[in-house]
Amino acid sequence: MRLITLLTFLFIISTNQLTAQQNDSVIFRNIANDILNHGTAYQNLRILCKEIGPRLPGTPQQLKAEKASFLMMQKMGADTVYLQECMVPHWVRGEKETAYITGMDGKKMSLDICALGNSVGTGNKGLSAELVEVTSFKQLDELGEKGIKGKIVYFNVRFNPSHIEPWKGYDETTGYRWNGPSRAAKYGAVGTMIRSLASNTDDYPHTGGMSYNDSFPKIPCIAISAVDGDFIAAELKKRKSLPLYFRTTCQTLPKVAGHNVIGEIRGSSSPDEIITVGGHLDSWDLAEGAHDDGAGCVQSMELIRVYKKLGIRPKRTIRVIMFADEENGGAGSDKYAELVKLKNEKLLFALESDDGGFVPRGFRFAMEDEKIEPLRKWLPLFYPYGVYKFEEGEAGADIENLKPLGAVIAGLYPDPQRYFDIHHTGADVFENVNKRELELGAASMAMLVYLVDKYGL
Amino acid sequence: MRLITLLTFLFIISTNQLTAQQNDSVIFRNIANDILNHGTAYQNLRILCKEIGPRLPGTPQQLKAEKASFLMMQKMGADTVYLQECMVPHWVRGEKETAYITGMDGKKMSLDICALGNSVGTGNKGLSAELVEVTSFKQLDELGEKGIKGKIVYFNVRFNPSHIEPWKGYDETTGYRWNGPSRAAKYGAVGTMIRSLASNTDDYPHTGGMSYNDSFPKIPCIAISAVDGDFIAAELKKRKSLPLYFRTTCQTLPKVAGHNVIGEIRGSSSPDEIITVGGHLDSWDLAEGAHDDGAGCVQSMELIRVYKKLGIRPKRTIRVIMFADEENGGAGSDKYAELVKLKNEKLLFALESDDGGFVPRGFRFAMEDEKIEPLRKWLPLFYPYGVYKFEEGEAGADIENLKPLGAVIAGLYPDPQRYFDIHHTGADVFENVNKRELELGAASMAMLVYLVDKYGL
Repeated sequence: MRLITLLTFLFIISTNQLTAQQNDSVIFRNIANDILNHGTAYQNLRILCKEIGPRLPGTPQQLKAEKASFLMMQKMGADTVYLQECMVPHWVRGEKETAYITGMDGKKMSLDICALGNSVGTGNKGLSAELVEVTSFKQLDELGEKGIKGKIVYFNVRFNPSHIEPWKGYDETTGYRWNGPSRAAKYGAVGTMIRSLASNTDDYPHTGGMSYNDSFPKIPCIAISAVDGDFIAAELKKRKSLPLYFRTTCQTLPKVAGHNVIGEIRGSSSPDEIITVGGHLDSWDLAEGAHDDGAGCVQSMELIRVYKKLGIRPKRTIRVIMFADEENGGAGSDKYAELVKLKNEKLLFALESDDGGFVPRGFRFAMEDEKIEPLRKWLPLFYPYGVYKFEEGEAGADIENLKPLGAVIAGLYPDPQRYFDIHHTGADVFENVNKRELELGAASMAMLVYLVDKYGL
Repeated sequence: MRLITLLTFLFIISTNQLTAQQNDSVIFRNIANDILNHGTAYQNLRILCKEIGPRLPGTPQQLKAEKASFLMMQKMGADTVYLQECMVPHWVRGEKETAYITGMDGKKMSLDICALGNSVGTGNKGLSAELVEVTSFKQLDELGEKGIKGKIVYFNVRFNPSHIEPWKGYDETTGYRWNGPSRAAKYGAVGTMIRSLASNTDDYPHTGGMSYNDSFPKIPCIAISAVDGDFIAAELKKRKSLPLYFRTTCQTLPKVAGHNVIGEIRGSSSPDEIITVGGHLDSWDLAEGAHDDGAGCVQSMELIRVYKKLGIRPKRTIRVIMFADEENGGAGSDKYAELVKLKNEKLLFALESDDGGFVPRGFRFAMEDEKIEPLRKWLPLFYPYGVYKFEEGEAGADIENLKPLGAVIAGLYPDPQRYFDIHHTGADVFENVNKRELELGAASMAMLVYLVDKYGL
């Protein structure tokens, strides 16, 4: 009798689970159909990229993008849309940078370079000094003041192509961009140049943020395209001395007001529990910030549109955020976390899309694998959409400070192979985003949030 | 005692299996490292695309590509490289096609179109007739002779965006390209136009093969870009009558000799068992055949290079084939199958890459799922490389006739989302292939063949 009871119980459980999964798979199908047939993510990305353009914090374009995304979320039927003011850095690139070396034949050879974000400029006359190449901080330290003083340090560190995960290549090299200038200035360098943080070899220099250590002089820093960087490395092997000239007129102006743009669907039964979904509205200025992170913004907003369209009424409050400033310091995410703390809000989950609008493969959760394991029961629902893995990893720069506030945080994991060809370059344009890839990412996010809201974490 | 014996036995078995898997994972790692660091696939693709260009069967470029790939495989250290002659069709596009309608204001509006492969031309003066739109063969049949005679039939059938798998969209629409002209000619149509078989909406017309039914007149047929196709559909809604003019000068010349180019690594212990790996060297003429199928060719050849470089000595004979003609009838694969049969060769396995040089997700086997299941024990070895599924599906047009000859046949399954944006268009150029995506596909193929050779099927 007890066995029969148990079996009956198990049967009921499994039937219920089956029905729930069937219902969920219908919802998934509806979400995908609607986004693939009637989605607005691609059109909204076109507006951010082509009508507005580069969205460097502190610029008029940033304000235009705030206004545009505000209206987009209103039009999608968000229950409320509002702004959170924060002070954002206002670094400007100034005139187009120039750089050259003098060839063996005495002719000037110009190089494809760009200033790094936050860098000081060279002044109007530019900077000319002997180049010294290092391939690691260790080598820099070994050369010391004797080898470095008065020179321009060329950090020639490339992505390791053996990493199947290009993010590993980025993680291994990004320190040279962030900290290289001050570490070289410590030994008296007058400037630095990095080989662009790129997974390919082309003519685009890759910009990106850097940060000065106040203990040392602030020296100008630039990135050189992989092609020209390799050329310089080859020249350095041939010559005893190689002076480099470069000129940058970038400067940091006083901070100005920027805003997180927030659209909410109010929870039907637990409105005080918050699920945050977002991307960052700002971008570098060399192109249109299409993959980084226009894609993440329009994917996040699409969630509001598709839920409203399909009549999905979340139990918890879904808060979609366009963060104000990720590239140049994180003022937007700092402000958001500060206000969450101040209001003592209950954050259940935060999801970011900031790894490009490529075809999705899964999600990365910033927690131990054993805590991710129970969530993998959801994966079969995602398989038909090409999403097959939940794994441990970084969730996203804009939401990582929500983890200490109690949120489970995760990031969309799009296929990463093309990202670092165009990341922070002039090639990060709308034309390089594929509509279906972008939409499948948006659909995956709406699906995951649907399950998290329905079943909790 | 018996239990202990059994446990010992199981321990030995599992240890051996573990060791075998460990060894295999080292080989996998070596294959990936070598291809990602020292691969020649991308450079070889550049040669096929940029130095040679479009490789329509019967053209001088086809012969150049045969010579180039012959030399590539020799240089890679193939034990033998040889040619298999076959007669290939020689259809030529002629002059750039033109088409226009007359706008409401009386002005000519030119359209982006191209002739379909194998189509007859309109003659020098072109063709002008009333357009009639149908969205299915059913509708065509319903209109019948009364509605069709003397007109140009516009098959306006689009990909269904709801399919997550774009190949489904292609499979559902490709019949209009292949059979549409003769099915319309049956009712007296004087020409046909198809909406391009495209997953996106842009200005590129997509060419592709078609075939006439000899029972009906051969009428000229063209494809129109999705943008212009949608425009025409909108105009047809507004107007009672819409004449279309188009001019194509394509023609079919007498067949000429082409060749399969074959490079082999001779098997060390079972040389008479053959594993075939290939792609097709021919391409359409609107661009460079970069994804279709230059990618598959250079990926297949890369297997010879990496095996020789790493000292992998297969037990069976690995036969890498550049098929002579896939796009325009399959003369290359017919010849190969004919010779296999004639020599009574033992084919174990055939693998093709003809779905584009995109990031790999898995392999498709042309057999029932229960027969694929035992092979899935290999999948964990592939996971680190982003390859996670073996599924039932089409293997590849060049090898499907090897299945009746006893071979297990499979195709590389790259991510399909971008393929039908550029398939058979002017956009199928080298620049649209990503180096790492191409290389990961090549590595996956070399890995699968390694396991098939080592463990059998």
